[in-house]
Amino acid sequence: MLQVPAGAKIAFQGEPGAFSQHAGHKIFGTRIEPLPCLTFEDAFDAVAHRKAVCAVIPIENTLAGSIHQNFDLLAHHSLEIVGETLLRVEHHLIAHPGVSLRQIEQIYSHPAALEQCKNLLRRHKKIEKISFYDTAGSVKFIRDRGLKNAAAIASENAAHIYGMNILRRGIEDDPENYTRFLALSRRNKFPSGGDKTSIVFGLKNEAGVLFKALSVFALRNIDLSKIESRPIRGTPWEYLFYLDLQSDLRSRECLRALRHLRELAPYLKVLGSYATF
Amino acid sequence: MLQVPAGAKIAFQGEPGAFSQHAGHKIFGTRIEPLPCLTFEDAFDAVAHRKAVCAVIPIENTLAGSIHQNFDLLAHHSLEIVGETLLRVEHHLIAHPGVSLRQIEQIYSHPAALEQCKNLLRRHKKIEKISFYDTAGSVKFIRDRGLKNAAAIASENAAHIYGMNILRRGIEDDPENYTRFLALSRRNKFPSGGDKTSIVFGLKNEAGVLFKALSVFALRNIDLSKIESRPIRGTPWEYLFYLDLQSDLRSRECLRALRHLRELAPYLKVLGSYATF
Repeated sequence: MLQVPAGAKIAFQGEPGAFSQHAGHKIFGTRIEPLPCLTFEDAFDAVAHRKAVCAVIPIENTLAGSIHQNFDLLAHHSLEIVGETLLRVEHHLIAHPGVSLRQIEQIYSHPAALEQCKNLLRRHKKIEKISFYDTAGSVKFIRDRGLKNAAAIASENAAHIYGMNILRRGIEDDPENYTRFLALSRRNKFPSGGDKTSIVFGLKNEAGVLFKALSVFALRNIDLSKIESRPIRGTPWEYLFYLDLQSDLRSRECLRALRHLRELAPYLKVLGSYATF
Repeated sequence: MLQVPAGAKIAFQGEPGAFSQHAGHKIFGTRIEPLPCLTFEDAFDAVAHRKAVCAVIPIENTLAGSIHQNFDLLAHHSLEIVGETLLRVEHHLIAHPGVSLRQIEQIYSHPAALEQCKNLLRRHKKIEKISFYDTAGSVKFIRDRGLKNAAAIASENAAHIYGMNILRRGIEDDPENYTRFLALSRRNKFPSGGDKTSIVFGLKNEAGVLFKALSVFALRNIDLSKIESRPIRGTPWEYLFYLDLQSDLRSRECLRALRHLRELAPYLKVLGSYATF
């Protein structure tokens, strides 16, 4: 675990009960104080403006893929990745106590959660699917408005926090459903280094330049665990590239590879070098 | 334009007025018959099951990035990309006729559209933002439910179709907002070939293998215009790679590069070779 003082504030996006809060406990233990934020950007800002010691944000899901907004925020903010953790995602169908599945006419959740529970939704074709931006938030929504003909898809924790009932457990289609979360802090707050190093860079618009950029790692036997590209605002069809390297920033090979990459990349930022919790 | 018979059915996701319908007119002309589908998967299925001649789907936006679900559907279905087009995206604030901005307490739209109109939303902090999965669908929602205190963010076309009023025009933060759309048909329905070739492949889990895969193009001076990776369901942390090549499938270099790639990639599928409209 990463050591923080008891009661240290950890920012995350979503209502209490969000999966990110759970990931925060895995990385920092249970003595932290969660700071729920409305948006991912608010969670980044809370750390940058010293309202929180760290933030915990989802970055990738094995079914839905990357959470792209958070890649963009990593590039735009100057926070440092200080740790990561993987969480098995379990979805439950949640409704008001006393309500049965036959009474449900609408199911609210994040589109990714609806997508991940397609088999159940297909068996109940008459139920209207309504997309919300947050799983725990959809539980809060149907509770606050007293919607007895509605259910939400969210975590067990969300059901408990809002005093709601779990109608069906583990309704996700594919049990190989994991989300990877990153812990972020202001720069130089935690010792740097670990099995993984994450970087972001921009390349000149030339033929074969991505190939050359990857060669700086291949030539030094540094393996990539992830590549992601994101559009650059204001310059349509140009991209920033995000790489996760299986390499410690404190190693000679990693430093040499990054020095080599700087020859090709007008923009290069190390996002962090960190361990898995 | 791609030639289809007058009245040919073209499938797209969303309610009438969706940006995809507009893209369909750019690729096929105005004499087509739009076939609105509930989901992207339904649009793919409509073509596969011969209910539509083609589908038009968004694949990438210059601000929000790739539409990942459609990458997944391209891999899982056996449809062929037969053309692409770029559309400038303009967002408008839409409400019931007679309603003024001061009366608005809630704004409904797709999260990407809300994200792209942040400046306006920041100036009206008291207005609640509600995420829906479809821009045109959010116009239909506030019309159907008679929500006079709500507005939606969507296209001009959506406002017209649902008889609603445009309160504010062109409210997007960044005018460099384009979406790229693909036209899909069953295999061998249109002549193959064009400036661009799209492929998807899976690699062995070995160090440096992505570097080797890209080398087959770099060594033949074939430029990449896009790389995208998506998780493979059931095997966490393994990926399929999608490439757009600036190369015609009918050229010798392109065929040789793909033959070379097959040596490295246990799975390789050509998604199409096509022109831009």
